[in-house]
Amino acid sequence: MVGHATLISGEGALKTGSGPIRTGVTAVLPRGRQSASVPVFAGWFSLNGNGEMTGTTWVEESGFMEGPVMITNTHSVGVVRDAVIAWRVKHGTPDPSGYWWSLPVVAETYDGFLNDINGFHVREKHAFDALDTAKSGPVIEGSAGGGTGMICYGFKGGIGTASRKLDDKSGGYTVGVLVQANFGRRNQLRIAGVPVGAELADTTIGSYDARFFREDVGSIITVVATDAPLLAHQLKRLARRAALGVARTGSSSGNGSGDIFIAFSTANPDAAKPAGLAQLTMLPNDQMNPIFEATVQATEEAIVNALIAAETMTGADNHKVVAIPHDRLKEVMRKYNRLVERTEITK
Amino acid sequence: MVGHATLISGEGALKTGSGPIRTGVTAVLPRGRQSASVPVFAGWFSLNGNGEMTGTTWVEESGFMEGPVMITNTHSVGVVRDAVIAWRVKHGTPDPSGYWWSLPVVAETYDGFLNDINGFHVREKHAFDALDTAKSGPVIEGSAGGGTGMICYGFKGGIGTASRKLDDKSGGYTVGVLVQANFGRRNQLRIAGVPVGAELADTTIGSYDARFFREDVGSIITVVATDAPLLAHQLKRLARRAALGVARTGSSSGNGSGDIFIAFSTANPDAAKPAGLAQLTMLPNDQMNPIFEATVQATEEAIVNALIAAETMTGADNHKVVAIPHDRLKEVMRKYNRLVERTEITK
Amino acid sequence: MVGHATLISGEGALKTGSGPIRTGVTAVLPRGRQSASVPVFAGWFSLNGNGEMTGTTWVEESGFMEGPVMITNTHSVGVVRDAVIAWRVKHGTPDPSGYWWSLPVVAETYDGFLNDINGFHVREKHAFDALDTAKSGPVIEGSAGGGTGMICYGFKGGIGTASRKLDDKSGGYTVGVLVQANFGRRNQLRIAGVPVGAELADTTIGSYDARFFREDVGSIITVVATDAPLLAHQLKRLARRAALGVARTGSSSGNGSGDIFIAFSTANPDAAKPAGLAQLTMLPNDQMNPIFEATVQATEEAIVNALIAAETMTGADNHKVVAIPHDRLKEVMRKYNRLVERTEITK
Amino acid sequence: MVGHATLISGEGALKTGSGPIRTGVTAVLPRGRQSASVPVFAGWFSLNGNGEMTGTTWVEESGFMEGPVMITNTHSVGVVRDAVIAWRVKHGTPDPSGYWWSLPVVAETYDGFLNDINGFHVREKHAFDALDTAKSGPVIEGSAGGGTGMICYGFKGGIGTASRKLDDKSGGYTVGVLVQANFGRRNQLRIAGVPVGAELADTTIGSYDARFFREDVGSIITVVATDAPLLAHQLKRLARRAALGVARTGSSSGNGSGDIFIAFSTANPDAAKPAGLAQLTMLPNDQMNPIFEATVQATEEAIVNALIAAETMTGADNHKVVAIPHDRLKEVMRKYNRLVERTEITK
Repeated sequence: MVGHATLISGEGALKTGSGPIRTGVTAVLPRGRQSASVPVFAGWFSLNGNGEMTGTTWVEESGFMEGPVMITNTHSVGVVRDAVIAWRVKHGTPDPSGYWWSLPVVAETYDGFLNDINGFHVREKHAFDALDTAKSGPVIEGSAGGGTGMICYGFKGGIGTASRKLDDKSGGYTVGVLVQANFGRRNQLRIAGVPVGAELADTTIGSYDARFFREDVGSIITVVATDAPLLAHQLKRLARRAALGVARTGSSSGNGSGDIFIAFSTANPDAAKPAGLAQLTMLPNDQMNPIFEATVQATEEAIVNALIAAETMTGADNHKVVAIPHDRLKEVMRKYNRLVERTEITK
Repeated sequence: MVGHATLISGEGALKTGSGPIRTGVTAVLPRGRQSASVPVFAGWFSLNGNGEMTGTTWVEESGFMEGPVMITNTHSVGVVRDAVIAWRVKHGTPDPSGYWWSLPVVAETYDGFLNDINGFHVREKHAFDALDTAKSGPVIEGSAGGGTGMICYGFKGGIGTASRKLDDKSGGYTVGVLVQANFGRRNQLRIAGVPVGAELADTTIGSYDARFFREDVGSIITVVATDAPLLAHQLKRLARRAALGVARTGSSSGNGSGDIFIAFSTANPDAAKPAGLAQLTMLPNDQMNPIFEATVQATEEAIVNALIAAETMTGADNHKVVAIPHDRLKEVMRKYNRLVERTEITK
Repeated sequence: MVGHATLISGEGALKTGSGPIRTGVTAVLPRGRQSASVPVFAGWFSLNGNGEMTGTTWVEESGFMEGPVMITNTHSVGVVRDAVIAWRVKHGTPDPSGYWWSLPVVAETYDGFLNDINGFHVREKHAFDALDTAKSGPVIEGSAGGGTGMICYGFKGGIGTASRKLDDKSGGYTVGVLVQANFGRRNQLRIAGVPVGAELADTTIGSYDARFFREDVGSIITVVATDAPLLAHQLKRLARRAALGVARTGSSSGNGSGDIFIAFSTANPDAAKPAGLAQLTMLPNDQMNPIFEATVQATEEAIVNALIAAETMTGADNHKVVAIPHDRLKEVMRKYNRLVERTEITK
Repeated sequence: MVGHATLISGEGALKTGSGPIRTGVTAVLPRGRQSASVPVFAGWFSLNGNGEMTGTTWVEESGFMEGPVMITNTHSVGVVRDAVIAWRVKHGTPDPSGYWWSLPVVAETYDGFLNDINGFHVREKHAFDALDTAKSGPVIEGSAGGGTGMICYGFKGGIGTASRKLDDKSGGYTVGVLVQANFGRRNQLRIAGVPVGAELADTTIGSYDARFFREDVGSIITVVATDAPLLAHQLKRLARRAALGVARTGSSSGNGSGDIFIAFSTANPDAAKPAGLAQLTMLPNDQMNPIFEATVQATEEAIVNALIAAETMTGADNHKVVAIPHDRLKEVMRKYNRLVERTEITK
């Protein structure tokens, strides 16, 4: 289940503390409402750690993620983190000791080009909103939730999702990926292998800011979810595959980029029960290849989907970031013989 | 430089949101007021990651720590983290890109036995306080700052410090350690090798709560500071040595313990300059042994100092945690022939 | 400097211990003949650790690589490793303690489809050969040295190299990459983004063995060398970028793949001197982007070069592995509008 | 099951290639004869990585250790590693693909003070010997197998073992530890917290070699075995606890020390089956504390046992290393009131 709280208000000159505001919070709940109390096996990987994902030290140690994954802007990680604890106290149960300690997983990317990030506009209630409105089914992509003010390959970015369902022979498992895409330099962009960024180099970017568009700055947070019965150390392997999906879109994971990935499995709901031995199911390592492939593909597609879904946005100081032009994109794909009949982009 | 904000108010029954309050924030500023803008080489290690230390992903990636280390209670990491960003915006300079992104290092231990932790009483201003009142010289130990409500080996714990100065032949460097000690089970405690915990097993603990005193729960955050010219990968080695100091006090680093250590060097102030090549000095690996020894010893002593300095405290729901009884401790040390003339505890 | 010892002898049915032999050893000497005594800063990364690279624990700890990188087949890592020690005893100097301990870096990929791998045909002398014949300048690619019996994306693979020289503004540094490529499933192969593998699915593979060609097995060892003054933790960042280069060629790093990467810098030759403080030069993190880009590109190209250089080989049990057909490849590149005038493959 | 091959021959002046020889190989077989084919869950940790343990990259990736753990001298890791592959080809079954690739776990410590280490006297047959003679029951300690030429805290060291059996309430599991102890400086040694090394500083060491006795060089390999049903990520936690046991004996893990630990569980024998889903049992994290405690204690005791069991040895160039004097040791323990009635050393 995924929920967004999207904060858009104000226009014109940046006045720190007043706006304009282009930010938000996205919540991913591995087990829906039960996420506050029933952990999932999880693993994480940092391709380039110029970013924050709280809670990872406990994920690494315990093999479990307890609670949701939250994604917001760089300067609001703290407020969202404490809000998740407050939300757990409201909605979950204490741990077996009767106490409530909690180490929430909260990640971020930077939206300070479009958003009054130093105004700290995200509040506890927005985190609650994202959590309380989370639902199953299609996720709003592009400029929504944590992705509201994000920029990707010099175009408007944000939230993107994609999934793959394995065939029955491979277990019929599903791999779903959600990204908050805020990374890459225009001329690096490749879609389905086509050098789209170089071809669209002349596209107006909007208000040009060398600091944001010249370098491979920004970040990408990737959440990989699966129902395949994978253990913690196997989920780390999945998290590393997200890097391969990112690579296919052209980035070389620049110094300024916080490219951090987390993967979890919804299988084995009884794994973290407080007493007695847990009985688990595990997919053997040598059956993981289809899941690796699915993870790479879904990550690649989720990034493209974020670009396709996002619409041009104007924010702080009238900074403007244009959406990738769909018609130009089709032309480029056709030029490289990669546009298929249904005018969908092949993977 | 170290600063504390200590929050103590209220008595009697716990009323979430009202108190009693027994908590705080401790700030360690590697370069004093310049800490907001001049990074230090740093490395970290998690002996048992049932805890939070934000910002470590960037420390690991970049080799640098930017800004202070903050320590508070488990449920206030977020507010302190965002406050450090706000403090930097006020006091520091933007990064070379002209922007302010920031990935503060904030750690925690749990004080929910004595403190109304779900009341979220730590505010931005308390973090500012700890930062603004930081000063050089002796540090208040025991129940101060982040250490206010902490428990260590079944006695009152909190902040402890110790240092070692190497002889000139070894470079004359200083290693200083600060711990926020909130870990260990009573009967595990060893001081200078003496089984103090077992000998003091009969000491009244105060109001007994099995959940807190039966298991090796709790956590210890350790900050190792040195002026030896060490690089990032060498500082990770120092961080790992803190584990050896912890071990000497008897803990086996229980599942519930967040035993997380960070080490930094104040040498090489020009290392992170934005343009051109940095000229660095490095102590070769094969000269590090005296620094390793110093780190282990100072960590061991800092923990003992936290115990010695702390005074008996009564907090939420009249929970009471007693200080280690100095007279009984001396007796035990004498029994094992480890009490020296000046009635100081030998290391 | 790079040297190969190539072992090719025998034909027909596999007789363990007799052959046919299709294997070898490749040696990379960071500092030429001085490599036995003058270490380099180094860092490593395992994308998928179904492989061996000895010596990495000390690389990780010390920040240095001492001696050469050797690459051979899976079952000969041991003999080559001990041989490197013997070679150092002959050619190098003892360490500052007067003793010779040594922790060589030796990696492998599996050639058991073409080679009598259980015959253990690599001997100490072959390792010496590779070391003693190493020289600067162009490297023999394809079926040479450790790469002799390797298979890549269902075609004959082996050794590949590529390099990038940065412009003066970026420091003028060089990044060179050497791969031993033995990985990937035919239909995964992408060259310059073009789905070459799918297009060449009908190409005869040679003697088909489902075990080798159905799954993404095999491995890739990547050595990244640069003269940019990077420290150990920065070189780990480079090693991680090799993964992005691999990803661009289509692999999802299958479970059976040992995808292990090491990066070193030849700068700072005085870094590991035994006494006194070392004076170092460091390229700041925020100037690393061009080096990241160069690493990704050179890794991608080195893999392609391994494929292009290799020639069809028949080995044990008359197993045959075909080279990628150059004419068909050009056709495919043209179909996707990626073939440039000089009939070179664009990156 | 544990087996030793012990090589002792020759006396007097060192003649490289001839002797004197004081070395060997120790084999730990997690599942006895089945170890060649049935993996165990495993995890490892390097406290100070100045050493080699091959095969760890695959342990980290897969969560499994396949085959035995071998321990030998620094310069014989290679020959032993390849021998394990040859042994598997003889005694085990191929992997599910029908092939034999294998990534053996082989560790080492340095015996070049007593042994002609550059003579490379360990051969394949010695590795086979250690494997083939392995048996259950008490293990020969001290100067045996890989531990033959080892030095610990300035006394004769070598192989040591210890175990703990948990009470039924804690699951009744057993934790066994085997160390190859070759580390520490005389004056660091603590036994049961007593400063034994400082008290025995005047004990003749034998032929004094500043290079070996002045610094905290040497290494310790620790193997932790348990039948508790722990997964890979939990076994890493156990491996880290071995560091705490080492710390209690006084070492600060010097720069020259290769302090590398591996832990495995013999539970879940069906975990790595090639087809279908594996059904596993897992001990929840919050029941691990007794196992942590057992691991720390058994590691501490195994080191002491190695010291107690070893006898004075004279080796290459008439270098002599004395055993710890039992009578003097008892005196010291008595002085600090730590000697119990049965004149056994308390823990």
